Amino acid sequence: MEKEIKPETERGTEGEIINTEKRYTVITGASSGIGYATAIAFAKRNKDLIVIARRKENLESLKQQIEIINPNIEVIIKVCDLTNIELITTLFNELRNYFIETWINNAGFGHYGSVSTQDLTKIGSMLHLNIEALTILSTLYVRKYHNHSNTQLINISSRGGYTIVPNAVTYCATKFYVNAFTEGLAQELIQTNAKLRAKVLAPAATQTEFGKKANDVHEYDYDKSFAKYHSADQMAEFLLALYDSDNIIGEISTKDFSFSLKDSIFPYSGNPAENQK
Amino acid sequence: MEKEIKPETERGTEGEIINTEKRYTVITGASSGIGYATAIAFAKRNKDLIVIARRKENLESLKQQIEIINPNIEVIIKVCDLTNIELITTLFNELRNYFIETWINNAGFGHYGSVSTQDLTKIGSMLHLNIEALTILSTLYVRKYHNHSNTQLINISSRGGYTIVPNAVTYCATKFYVNAFTEGLAQELIQTNAKLRAKVLAPAATQTEFGKKANDVHEYDYDKSFAKYHSADQMAEFLLALYDSDNIIGEISTKDFSFSLKDSIFPYSGNPAENQK
Repeated sequence: MEKEIKPETERGTEGEIINTEKRYTVITGASSGIGYATAIAFAKRNKDLIVIARRKENLESLKQQIEIINPNIEVIIKVCDLTNIELITTLFNELRNYFIETWINNAGFGHYGSVSTQDLTKIGSMLHLNIEALTILSTLYVRKYHNHSNTQLINISSRGGYTIVPNAVTYCATKFYVNAFTEGLAQELIQTNAKLRAKVLAPAATQTEFGKKANDVHEYDYDKSFAKYHSADQMAEFLLALYDSDNIIGEISTKDFSFSLKDSIFPYSGNPAENQK
Repeated sequence: MEKEIKPETERGTEGEIINTEKRYTVITGASSGIGYATAIAFAKRNKDLIVIARRKENLESLKQQIEIINPNIEVIIKVCDLTNIELITTLFNELRNYFIETWINNAGFGHYGSVSTQDLTKIGSMLHLNIEALTILSTLYVRKYHNHSNTQLINISSRGGYTIVPNAVTYCATKFYVNAFTEGLAQELIQTNAKLRAKVLAPAATQTEFGKKANDVHEYDYDKSFAKYHSADQMAEFLLALYDSDNIIGEISTKDFSFSLKDSIFPYSGNPAENQK
């Protein structure tokens, strides 16, 4: 989809001219679950959207639903499998003429099972999506937008990235990566007086396609598996609360499933020379 | 190098016959630093070695040095660039006729610099080596050896994987992954009554080639950069202390640089259903 360049423009940090009048929110993994619900929630806030996922038909359903809810919203569909690392820089470059106010890395999946029995093809895809794609997209977005006001990077992680969960060790480790990366990046942006803010959402159990994919099953009953869980719509509301706040972390308590905003969970060393390997 | 099959054999968990009389210690990244010093330390313990790295000449120097120190030791050299993920399963399969008593994932490197300026080619290699190669080799080793007595997997990580260090955010995040993965795996092995043990070493500043590679410089002065640091030989001694212990973590204190043995640092949920995303 071609975008008309309107008069209100400025130079990005790499010199290109960006139209800053019309601002977009990018959501990866928008074809279902928290990503889909988040797209709806941002559309209700009158945010124009760029939605990214593998499943084109799901993104088209999302677009149709948004047209009913809020016909003023522009929804741009980008079909991309982010486990394919070689596609990512091209995808980002294709968005160069859109001013991206908010970038939400939501795409990710889990795996339940022991390390000794885990399938390395699935685990490889999980590492590529949860860690490598998120890192590349975060870096490209931060590089381009760090000096633009009112911009945000939000990474969707997991409470399993703060507490190791039995039978989900490798998945949790990917989310420890995401939480440490995003907390550290958020501090780095603040300390270097960047205008961009980085934030991380750490959901607990949320009723999405996550359970099916993580367990390699066609049906997954959240009522049987969890005493308590959130809906994707509830999680999108928590994401908006994080988005509206000045805090870095939006976390679901594993004790009472309440939502709270925080600025740090992992220890952070003020002195760069203290903790090197 | 072909290995003669001797009479004392048993069946591995995948059915193949392994000679269990002669036992080997595998060390990745053995061409310099902690890996090189660890090879020397295990050779002094009369352990036959399989040393893996990119730089063949360094591994040959190591082999020559070990021949002087302890001429009874067999040193098998495997040249492999573990950032090239496609080579890893083949490498592991090439070792199928050796009984591997201890597997030490030491290969890894760091990066200093802000997220916004980090080079994505270097970062990609770091993610592949520090996370993906370590995960694949850990999984293959655990899958094959989990029911063999007196076997160990030791992953070399960093104190930067427990405390985020400014200007090293992405590197630290890779080590948060390694620490969470290895702590979780260690618990999983204990809870499933496996005979294999998994352990993680978390060094602080250690005088190796790490500083040069992390800072992209040809010379790096540890005296100028750190008030206190360890030598690679000291770190190899700490690794042996971890190896000899029943503990899971060998950690260097960032306060006084002392070494201590622990069984957990990250929170661990006893209930698998508590903390899913």
